[in-house]
Amino acid sequence: MRGRSAATNVFRPGDVVLLRDVIRPSLAVLSKPLRLQSATEDRPPSINTHRGEVRHAAILDAHPRTLVKSHTGGATFVATFPTLEEYINFRRRKATPIYTFDAAAIVALADIHVDEREHTVFEFLEAGTGHGSLTLAIARVIHAANANLAENAPRKAVLHSLDSNKEHAKYGVKNLHEFRRGLYAADVDFHAPTTPSAYLHDRLESLREQDELETAFLSGAFLDLPSPELEVEVVARFLKTDCPLVVFAPSITQIVEVIEAVDAKNIPLSIYKVVELLPGMGGSMRQWDLRRAVVRNRLDEQAQEGSSDSQYKWVCRPLVGERIVGGGFVAVFRKKLQKTRRDNAIELER
Amino acid sequence: MRGRSAATNVFRPGDVVLLRDVIRPSLAVLSKPLRLQSATEDRPPSINTHRGEVRHAAILDAHPRTLVKSHTGGATFVATFPTLEEYINFRRRKATPIYTFDAAAIVALADIHVDEREHTVFEFLEAGTGHGSLTLAIARVIHAANANLAENAPRKAVLHSLDSNKEHAKYGVKNLHEFRRGLYAADVDFHAPTTPSAYLHDRLESLREQDELETAFLSGAFLDLPSPELEVEVVARFLKTDCPLVVFAPSITQIVEVIEAVDAKNIPLSIYKVVELLPGMGGSMRQWDLRRAVVRNRLDEQAQEGSSDSQYKWVCRPLVGERIVGGGFVAVFRKKLQKTRRDNAIELER
Amino acid sequence: MRGRSAATNVFRPGDVVLLRDVIRPSLAVLSKPLRLQSATEDRPPSINTHRGEVRHAAILDAHPRTLVKSHTGGATFVATFPTLEEYINFRRRKATPIYTFDAAAIVALADIHVDEREHTVFEFLEAGTGHGSLTLAIARVIHAANANLAENAPRKAVLHSLDSNKEHAKYGVKNLHEFRRGLYAADVDFHAPTTPSAYLHDRLESLREQDELETAFLSGAFLDLPSPELEVEVVARFLKTDCPLVVFAPSITQIVEVIEAVDAKNIPLSIYKVVELLPGMGGSMRQWDLRRAVVRNRLDEQAQEGSSDSQYKWVCRPLVGERIVGGGFVAVFRKKLQKTRRDNAIELER
Amino acid sequence: MRGRSAATNVFRPGDVVLLRDVIRPSLAVLSKPLRLQSATEDRPPSINTHRGEVRHAAILDAHPRTLVKSHTGGATFVATFPTLEEYINFRRRKATPIYTFDAAAIVALADIHVDEREHTVFEFLEAGTGHGSLTLAIARVIHAANANLAENAPRKAVLHSLDSNKEHAKYGVKNLHEFRRGLYAADVDFHAPTTPSAYLHDRLESLREQDELETAFLSGAFLDLPSPELEVEVVARFLKTDCPLVVFAPSITQIVEVIEAVDAKNIPLSIYKVVELLPGMGGSMRQWDLRRAVVRNRLDEQAQEGSSDSQYKWVCRPLVGERIVGGGFVAVFRKKLQKTRRDNAIELER
Repeated sequence: MRGRSAATNVFRPGDVVLLRDVIRPSLAVLSKPLRLQSATEDRPPSINTHRGEVRHAAILDAHPRTLVKSHTGGATFVATFPTLEEYINFRRRKATPIYTFDAAAIVALADIHVDEREHTVFEFLEAGTGHGSLTLAIARVIHAANANLAENAPRKAVLHSLDSNKEHAKYGVKNLHEFRRGLYAADVDFHAPTTPSAYLHDRLESLREQDELETAFLSGAFLDLPSPELEVEVVARFLKTDCPLVVFAPSITQIVEVIEAVDAKNIPLSIYKVVELLPGMGGSMRQWDLRRAVVRNRLDEQAQEGSSDSQYKWVCRPLVGERIVGGGFVAVFRKKLQKTRRDNAIELER
Repeated sequence: MRGRSAATNVFRPGDVVLLRDVIRPSLAVLSKPLRLQSATEDRPPSINTHRGEVRHAAILDAHPRTLVKSHTGGATFVATFPTLEEYINFRRRKATPIYTFDAAAIVALADIHVDEREHTVFEFLEAGTGHGSLTLAIARVIHAANANLAENAPRKAVLHSLDSNKEHAKYGVKNLHEFRRGLYAADVDFHAPTTPSAYLHDRLESLREQDELETAFLSGAFLDLPSPELEVEVVARFLKTDCPLVVFAPSITQIVEVIEAVDAKNIPLSIYKVVELLPGMGGSMRQWDLRRAVVRNRLDEQAQEGSSDSQYKWVCRPLVGERIVGGGFVAVFRKKLQKTRRDNAIELER
Repeated sequence: MRGRSAATNVFRPGDVVLLRDVIRPSLAVLSKPLRLQSATEDRPPSINTHRGEVRHAAILDAHPRTLVKSHTGGATFVATFPTLEEYINFRRRKATPIYTFDAAAIVALADIHVDEREHTVFEFLEAGTGHGSLTLAIARVIHAANANLAENAPRKAVLHSLDSNKEHAKYGVKNLHEFRRGLYAADVDFHAPTTPSAYLHDRLESLREQDELETAFLSGAFLDLPSPELEVEVVARFLKTDCPLVVFAPSITQIVEVIEAVDAKNIPLSIYKVVELLPGMGGSMRQWDLRRAVVRNRLDEQAQEGSSDSQYKWVCRPLVGERIVGGGFVAVFRKKLQKTRRDNAIELER
Repeated sequence: MRGRSAATNVFRPGDVVLLRDVIRPSLAVLSKPLRLQSATEDRPPSINTHRGEVRHAAILDAHPRTLVKSHTGGATFVATFPTLEEYINFRRRKATPIYTFDAAAIVALADIHVDEREHTVFEFLEAGTGHGSLTLAIARVIHAANANLAENAPRKAVLHSLDSNKEHAKYGVKNLHEFRRGLYAADVDFHAPTTPSAYLHDRLESLREQDELETAFLSGAFLDLPSPELEVEVVARFLKTDCPLVVFAPSITQIVEVIEAVDAKNIPLSIYKVVELLPGMGGSMRQWDLRRAVVRNRLDEQAQEGSSDSQYKWVCRPLVGERIVGGGFVAVFRKKLQKTRRDNAIELER
């Protein structure tokens, strides 16, 4: 019998669960939110796997890592909460995702530390939402400012995630709600403006009654757009001093175009660094293949003594045979301090 | 004149500041915590740079990205809060650091999501503390659980960072307090036990009155030890089901030894993945060199028409000439569900 | 009409030809040696492609890069001599090949310069033959010593390629004969001994009448064996002073075992370097995807002016989506000078 | 006493020798060509090392791998013929070298197989010569065609290496003569024209009496120029059908410009592939650090039993701490078959 503490650690209605075949671990399937059979349903809600159905009821109230069997196919699966990587990789794709560890690296490069002790609201911008993996990565790092707040307290941090494609915006909401019981759902607002500029100009309108300095309301911005060079000037205008503007692009030439735009239009951004996220198995990192195995004999050694126990060797090498995915280029800028020449003169007198 | 909102965004006593030479940006220096001159001091507190001193007073109350001049050497610096990367790289080293983006990747691999809505305390273990860069990276990701708590409320998450070297433990405290006004300082407890096992056995003693299940109190563990294979069994015993045990090691053979120990001792850990953090410029990522420059002419083109404006070209290549640093190997395990055979039989009936 | 000079540059009977689909260049097929229809054949010799047959007669006497059509399927192909890479990749595989550029790198690491002006025969050893790609790479670099020799003159260089699998040895002969009109065929002898040691001991027998010094007859050795640590001692004994012994292995732990054997048995080898051939698309190099393309719009920009011509952008990024292949580890040793202590004493007096 | 066979294997006057410190192998010095003391010299010819002088006389007549002592400093060195890598790296630099294994990879990509059985002269072009490392790599692969020829027989292959800088051309001659007793010296002609185009137009003049087809006399071309896009059209015109044109450039944007030029000017080149030579320790490969060592203890394990023998561990990791060098981008093109539309029509009828 399970007590109170166990209850926090069992699958509940609404949870999204990963089932992984215990025999062939590369075969995995992500469930829809678990639910009980409703009165009007003929058939119990189930997860379709490559080896038959697994009923939601078999998973509800079970601990993570419980083994479950498919009702029809006889396969056995381990049921777990998906990691963020698994959640992104196994969801139905509306757009090419930024791979989880690439997204984590992009956010690490932005060096965001939202200090919930400050009396301010930290606003961030992401354009575009796409598959939502970068959205989740940003939400995760700004979440602290909103944690433990009283129910009706205003948020201290918010990510505005934009995508002109209304489908992506809608999917983004669902994406956040279904991950880890909606832990990061309140940290993001989704919008579907024509362009980021259009969104920002709308915001500017509502800020008009306030003074000029206050229009720089963004504590950070992330651009993942086909033509980021068209938006960088407007976004930079709304960025607070020293705050990061991060551009992600699959092609290095797109980064070159952004830097050209910054130079040509004298945009007050200071380049911090340009890095490449190396393509691989879904992150800048390389996966290795480490296991004991019978090594194929190119040169027959049957005649040798002791060959029987030398058959087992460590395979200890970078994983090959996988498709190369992910990667891309990231430029990190920081907003310059904008002041008059007289201000600068005064500073330099100190 | 600065108003209230500006005040949150100027350097204050206690802040650690990075000064970067505007002419040669690779030259940078990290300050001690800024302070006002005390009544008993003859000389005003200053930062020693390669080009003379900069007084703390010149930085206090200034905005980030303000330009300051060295009092004696006439050099100009941009003053900013250090990024986490700069903070780690420019601090005096007590041990070889895990580079910032390597540390971020290690934490991303652990896939930690502390849900502050749960009624539990999330405890994590790190062994050893070393330079403290992984400590900061873990603190950052568990911080949400402790954010916005009332002053005397108990913490909801804590990282126990262990190092047998008392100097490292002491330095770790200082390290956390001086970063971003101590934002993550309350998230970590430092200990200096002989070994991680010794620490865990002490904890076990104080858990004796509680039932067996409760002794698995760790929501995650990170090992950065010369011989992690000696500690993995004890640490795994205290890990909650499905929670991550992450081993970082510079050599792949150390990872092999850990996996051998897990196999040989039948430790209830499931290997999730082994990855390599590629060595580079301090992260698995590659830095690029992007700038307009006069390209050196190997073949003289003076005689060609139009050569004058073809002299300026984009340099657009991976950065070379830097020392290769960082890198290492990471194995991520997850604690298996431990139950009797009868339990398993019941599960499979579902 | 084609004259004499053209004749050297057209496809002839015996040539192996690569047909590459002009519309989908990734589709390519390697022919068998071209031949004329014999009197006894009902059907003309043809190449089966994914889009119908191409007759040998359509290629014979044509220049490389001629376009040919499949007789039945209506597809158009460019006919060329295969590059070494294409020849290796598109041949039927008897064993996992060492990828062409990996093989070239292995040979470059060995730093072989056979000086045909010297009055000696340069003998090399390769174990095992496998798919034959390293064989071809070694043959190519020792070929100079045998070039332009009178018809019956003895060879000045020879590679002994060993494989206990008789199929591999037989296939190796065919492999060399069919590449570039057998250009490198005379540079290699294939053998199928039980082990390299067995082969070398046989050779030793026939060298017995000669003095001890002369038994070191190898100018270089290449080991690509599942357990190279078992053979390294014997092979080293037959190696001339300062000549290279190169070990290739997929797993780094195999290299560790070889170095352990060298240390433990005091084998007179000096380690020169250990390198990793990075896995990728068939060589340590990374292939890039460079082309003008319509970039998919994540954020709809239709409303923007000038968007029509901004649709075409350079794709300029590392190629992704391909399977990661190749890679491995290479240790290069050099044979130490073996002499008595007295010899050394004399040397040091100089 | 040394006999005849030994004589081929001892250092002789004219040889360039590498001395490597036996205690600190990273310290090495390359000699000038060895020579005997002349009657007019006061002091014997010597090599200056960081630890005193080593006399040429101490090396002459010694076998490779002989140990020699510095006359004054008491250090001991191993004397060997330099590998190609050592020869390039330790020579005085007139220009940034293409690292040896990068040069080998570039040549491998060109897939050159000079068939000495054909009745033709194979001519190759390299622009520019620079430090001469690519020159040596190309010479090595075309050398076979010239090997074993009678003394006054005409060459069957020649590389024309161009550099507008006369110093580079002059240095190139010396470079080839001093490597391995001038083995590849006869394979290269050095020229110092203003531009490659100027050189090729001069060649065209002397080819005027011959028919149009014959003006395409190059079997391969290598461009390592700051603005390769300016030369690619002229060079392509002189290239034989299906022969390679290889462009090496440090920046990917230079490769983009070449491809743009090929498209814009409709140059009859077919792109074969674009690859990146990864920067590292002087080759696309990664060097590893493999050795037994005492691993630094981050966490003190003195109290543990058995710790004494666990102190020795394998270091088995990519080498770090070195400067990142080399790398670059390579585009390989092949000359298209140029013919009239009527020709093509006929071909397609086959």
